[in-house]
Amino acid sequence: MKVSELGEFGLIELLADIIDKTKDAKSASWQKVIIGIGDDAAAWQGDAHIQLATTDSLVQDTHFDLDVTGWEELGWKAIAVNLSDIAAMGGIPQYALVSLALPGELDADCVASFYQGMAKIANPFGIAIAGGNIASADKAMISVTILGSLEGKSVLTRSAASPGDQIAVTGYLGTSAAGLRMLKQRLDFDAETAVLFQQAHLQPMPRIREGQILLQCGVKAAIDISDGLLSDLAHICKASKVSARIQEDLVPIHPAVKANFRMDCRQLALTGGEDYELLFTASKQVVARVKQAISCLVTVIGEITDGMPGQVTVTDATGKNIPWQRVGWEHFKSKA
Amino acid sequence: MKVSELGEFGLIELLADIIDKTKDAKSASWQKVIIGIGDDAAAWQGDAHIQLATTDSLVQDTHFDLDVTGWEELGWKAIAVNLSDIAAMGGIPQYALVSLALPGELDADCVASFYQGMAKIANPFGIAIAGGNIASADKAMISVTILGSLEGKSVLTRSAASPGDQIAVTGYLGTSAAGLRMLKQRLDFDAETAVLFQQAHLQPMPRIREGQILLQCGVKAAIDISDGLLSDLAHICKASKVSARIQEDLVPIHPAVKANFRMDCRQLALTGGEDYELLFTASKQVVARVKQAISCLVTVIGEITDGMPGQVTVTDATGKNIPWQRVGWEHFKSKA
Repeated sequence: MKVSELGEFGLIELLADIIDKTKDAKSASWQKVIIGIGDDAAAWQGDAHIQLATTDSLVQDTHFDLDVTGWEELGWKAIAVNLSDIAAMGGIPQYALVSLALPGELDADCVASFYQGMAKIANPFGIAIAGGNIASADKAMISVTILGSLEGKSVLTRSAASPGDQIAVTGYLGTSAAGLRMLKQRLDFDAETAVLFQQAHLQPMPRIREGQILLQCGVKAAIDISDGLLSDLAHICKASKVSARIQEDLVPIHPAVKANFRMDCRQLALTGGEDYELLFTASKQVVARVKQAISCLVTVIGEITDGMPGQVTVTDATGKNIPWQRVGWEHFKSKA
Repeated sequence: MKVSELGEFGLIELLADIIDKTKDAKSASWQKVIIGIGDDAAAWQGDAHIQLATTDSLVQDTHFDLDVTGWEELGWKAIAVNLSDIAAMGGIPQYALVSLALPGELDADCVASFYQGMAKIANPFGIAIAGGNIASADKAMISVTILGSLEGKSVLTRSAASPGDQIAVTGYLGTSAAGLRMLKQRLDFDAETAVLFQQAHLQPMPRIREGQILLQCGVKAAIDISDGLLSDLAHICKASKVSARIQEDLVPIHPAVKANFRMDCRQLALTGGEDYELLFTASKQVVARVKQAISCLVTVIGEITDGMPGQVTVTDATGKNIPWQRVGWEHFKSKA
């Protein structure tokens, strides 16, 4: 079967199965693994703290288009998308490794800008860019690995959602997808809106501090929204063997997205992806505690239910089901 | 200036300089960094041990050709080349993260074989494949990150060679380059020779145990031979601000390479690369100690001298200089 027929998530399941069957589970390293393939980051027991590691790639013409993305922005984004995975575990990012494959005809100034863009986001989060690798390739590909750790003994996972949990999300959704559409279709907005959309798409701000607060407040289940709200909620439900029901009109859509994409704003928010907000589930009491402790918007959009593992239902304000077809980004299956 | 004009090593210097100028040196993470960009692996002070991290990529049609490399062998090699970087620091490998970019039309069985190939080398070295990432791309690209640690307080680096040190190398050189040539030119050898060459090129065995022994014996300076003996020795000399002189006839060339590539065997051994043997420098006493402690061949091939940083001179048995033009693999500049 072709990879494209199996799809990204089918392939990940296949590989997780092979790893499971071929691994030497008695080795000291495997004994220390707490979370392996299939969550936002891997976690293992270190000498004093739980260690986290995540890797993410940006492939030219798959993840980015040099017509709409500058190299400095790409540097920012390559770090940010990985930081968001650390945020989704409640972790503290510490070190980055950067693996670049680049075409020889690229101007070295572009690579310099890329590194400057990385520094702009690495510095405020205290990350040391400790190493990397450079190779030649026909198209640019960027792989960043971020290593981090956890302050306490617990970690946010995709697999800890329970029936009865509220489903909540930080910030607003849809702004990044609005930015991508603006850039691709060269849409015209007032300066403030244009900057908002562009930054949301090209320079997302990972919710590192917020992830740590979730953990401190007792949240157990979280994911970052990269593929899209519905798709990422389905990931939580599949890993936790539960269903979810969300109420469409509760999803926090940024006013600027509502105002400028009247017809499509819900699709942008529910399936657009790359928001890098945190989606989490917890009891009503814990969610209330989070709202007290956190400085960003936190919105309850639905609840975890018993039912088919991975199933996500969308309803309107009256509780009537709304069919949703496109459930977000999946490599090999989706078209950007 | 184009990346191809600057070359891989020029680009690394440029990026190391940008990192140095833009970094927040006061951050806790930067304070703990012991070795940053420019060595075989990054090293930082962990909670109880020095931590190591290295990343390396294999790009289709740059590093591998699917006409001569099977997916299982590619899985082995993707892990092995990173393990070799850990070996060159004297470290213990522990965890691997695997980032794959793959064409959608690829058969999923190939990816399964790739993971089986990784398991075959990960298991004997006790490595847990803890995470990764999958994305779609036109050509296959594999980025592996290996995390490890050090038993003691010291680490092998490229920058610790001193004038008067002997230069020594583990094992035989040239076998991997012989394997590549055999595969590309479809050369015919007896079965034993063919297996030797093929394994050397497609399934190299990293010198993990040997790296640890070097460190225990008091060696300070080492590198693994990936770009080629002359090129990698030049990396040590540049980082250590010294020169080196090696005697061509002392370089250990495998008898099968000598017998089958009479005219080219020295070029294969001095510049072929991908041997994944360890090249190290140390005092005569320390080298003698290594020879006692280690089970593989260790050959002294020259000495570190005062002189222009990075300069490597090759002599014949009488001490007469031999000009060498091609100094090994460099991305953007070399042709395979």
